[in-house]
Formats: sequence, C-alpha cells, structure tokens
Amino acid sequence: MNADKIPDIIIGRLPIYLRALQRMADSGLRTISSQELGEMVGVSAAQIRKDISQFGEFGKQGTGYSIAYLLEKLREILKVDRIWNVALVGAGDMGHALARYQGFVNRGFKVVMVFDNDQNKIGQHIGDFIIEDTANMIERIKSANIKIAMLTVPAPAAQHIADDLVEAGVKAILNYAPISLNVPKSVKVQYIDPSIHLQRMTFYV
Amino acid sequence: MNADKIPDIIIGRLPIYLRALQRMADSGLRTISSQELGEMVGVSAAQIRKDISQFGEFGKQGTGYSIAYLLEKLREILKVDRIWNVALVGAGDMGHALARYQGFVNRGFKVVMVFDNDQNKIGQHIGDFIIEDTANMIERIKSANIKIAMLTVPAPAAQHIADDLVEAGVKAILNYAPISLNVPKSVKVQYIDPSIHLQRMTFYV
Repeated sequence: MNADKIPDIIIGRLPIYLRALQRMADSGLRTISSQELGEMVGVSAAQIRKDISQFGEFGKQGTGYSIAYLLEKLREILKVDRIWNVALVGAGDMGHALARYQGFVNRGFKVVMVFDNDQNKIGQHIGDFIIEDTANMIERIKSANIKIAMLTVPAPAAQHIADDLVEAGVKAILNYAPISLNVPKSVKVQYIDPSIHLQRMTFYV
Repeated sequence: MNADKIPDIIIGRLPIYLRALQRMADSGLRTISSQELGEMVGVSAAQIRKDISQFGEFGKQGTGYSIAYLLEKLREILKVDRIWNVALVGAGDMGHALARYQGFVNRGFKVVMVFDNDQNKIGQHIGDFIIEDTANMIERIKSANIKIAMLTVPAPAAQHIADDLVEAGVKAILNYAPISLNVPKSVKVQYIDPSIHLQRMTFYV
C-alpha cells in the first residue's frame, strides 16, 4: 500500500464508506457488495471498487467484501484505528454541543480539553470538562501532545487562536468560525459553516 | 449569464468568496484584487478571475473588483439576495446550537420553526421558538412553503424524517445525522459530520 499517492478526492470518500460499513456491522451484517455499499452512500459500484482497489485486493468476485476486514483496513488507512485526543476552543453554544457530542465515540476521536477566554466561563463545567483559560492553551496542548483541535470561537478571534494552535503543535483544525484561516502547509484545516453549506444548495433550488 | 452551465465545483467556491467579501465590506473596504481575495480564501488569483468571469465582466484591469457590486452579483447568483425560511428538525444539543446560531444573519437564512418527536420537548422554548411536534411537520412546512430544512435527529430516524421533508416539498436538506440519505434527484443534500471532517485530516497527520 502506498498511501502517499492516493488522490485527495478518494481520501475524502473513505470516511463516508467507513461510516456506512460501521452501520452495517452494527446491524449484524458480515459481507457487502460494491453495489450495496454504493446505494448506501450514493456512489457508483464501479467507483467504489476503484477507490478500494487503491489499497489492495479486498473483495472476492461474487462474494463481496468482508465488512470486518474492510473496516479494519479503512480505519488503518485513515489512522482512526486509535483514539485521537482533541482540544476544543470556544465554549459557546456550538462548543457545548461538540463537548457533549456522541458522534465521536467509536470513530477515532475524544474531546479531552475545552478552552475559552471568557472569565465567566473559565472554571465552569461543560459536559465532563472544566473550561480552561486560553491563556494556558499552548502549554496545555503541547504537554498533552495533542495534534487535533476544533475551533468554535467568533470570526475575529479565529486567526489568532489558529496561530496559537499551530505553535502548540496542532496539525489538523476543524474550524467552525466563519472565516478562512491562514496556516502553514503542514497543517490541515477543514471547515464547517452551515451558511456556506446552505448557500451551496440554494443555487439549485 | 447562463447559471445552469456553471460547474458544481465553481458553485462550491462562490459561498467562500461571498463570505470573504462580506467581511471586507464590513471592515469598510470598497475594492479588492483577485490576488488579495485569493490570499484570504486560499485560492489562486487566476482561479478566482476564471471563476468570477463565468458570470460576466466584473473587474477592471488594475483597479480590482468593486466589492459591493461583486457581493450583489454573488448573492443574486446563489439566490441569497433574499431570506430563506428554514425548518429545523431535532431539538437536541446541536439543534439548540443551530436555533440560536448567529451565523445565518445577513447570509440568507432564518430558522422559523423547530420540530422534535419527544413529548418532553414539545412545547418547550428553544431560542425564540416553541418546539413543535414532528407529527404536524409535513402540514406545517407545506403551508409555510418552506424549501430548506436542517436535520439534527439521531441516525436511525433520519431517513424517515427526510422522506417526510421531501413529501412536504423541501428541496434542500442540511443533514447533521451521521448517515447518507436517499432522496429524489430534485432534492439537494449537504452533510455536516464532524467525525467525517476529522477523519479526512488524520490521514495526513
């Protein structure tokens, strides 16, 4: 397997396959055809076979893929065969929702610390956490060797916090602030902005 | 302008440009070069010029784009030169965060009703809304002529609710439930799943 050469667009589809396969496994299924998986995720069977073949020969003609084996391989490729500790910055409504979010369980992630700069919030509980002061953020993230952060601060604060996260050694940022971040090439950013997602659809309505 | 012919990948970038231009306008700027806009959003200046030229001739050589004019045109193209009423289904943590979310203001969207099927939640307040019973959802959405919905229900309930939304005439669904939805081709779906976004980055870390 030469994962370095895999096009980013394929990498983008693998978590979708992983999620669907996990649901199949949870419901007790053991094998799945590319056709069935394709219907679940809205991708053609041919595309699925092509994507999966990038990583080796997983399926047998006629019997479909072993779900357990494919799950194991996808988790390994995406490096979620482990638990990544995640720092959450911003303890507003969205921060609260993410601190208590059940959708990280079994998917490779665990929020382990929450930061805010609001003196009224620092020391308060949020889910299982006590909100910490962003003033200590760089040191705390460094010493815990955390590589992933989620950002739910207001737009004007986001770039400054992102700079601090990069300094702390964070390599992947999930950004909920409605602003594009400038980070070094070695740091990945993904964006979640519901208005952007909605605007992407109104064009077609 | 022949908007029908614009590739989907370009449509996907326009909301990002719109957001950046809005921020520039808010900070009092009047013109912007493709270079400056490109740096803000992480896209090359050439790509920005090419994307924008799809819709006509907006910029003058040497003086850059008029921000106000470009904003007006982008809003028109994306059809967010109006306010879309949005129905929110699911009044859990994420539903609460979205019902109170300030990031829809001035961006074309307004949550106007919230539904849940939990008898303990129905009738309760959430932001400015009273949570309504999903049993009345189809009728309520139809009579209010709502075309856009956000879904924050648990995965096992999501497909059933999506079917109801389609029946009610909804044409665009922003889905927070961690499951791929099957809808008719005439209905658009966008997905927000923080685990998927995180898994898309761990590959590279």
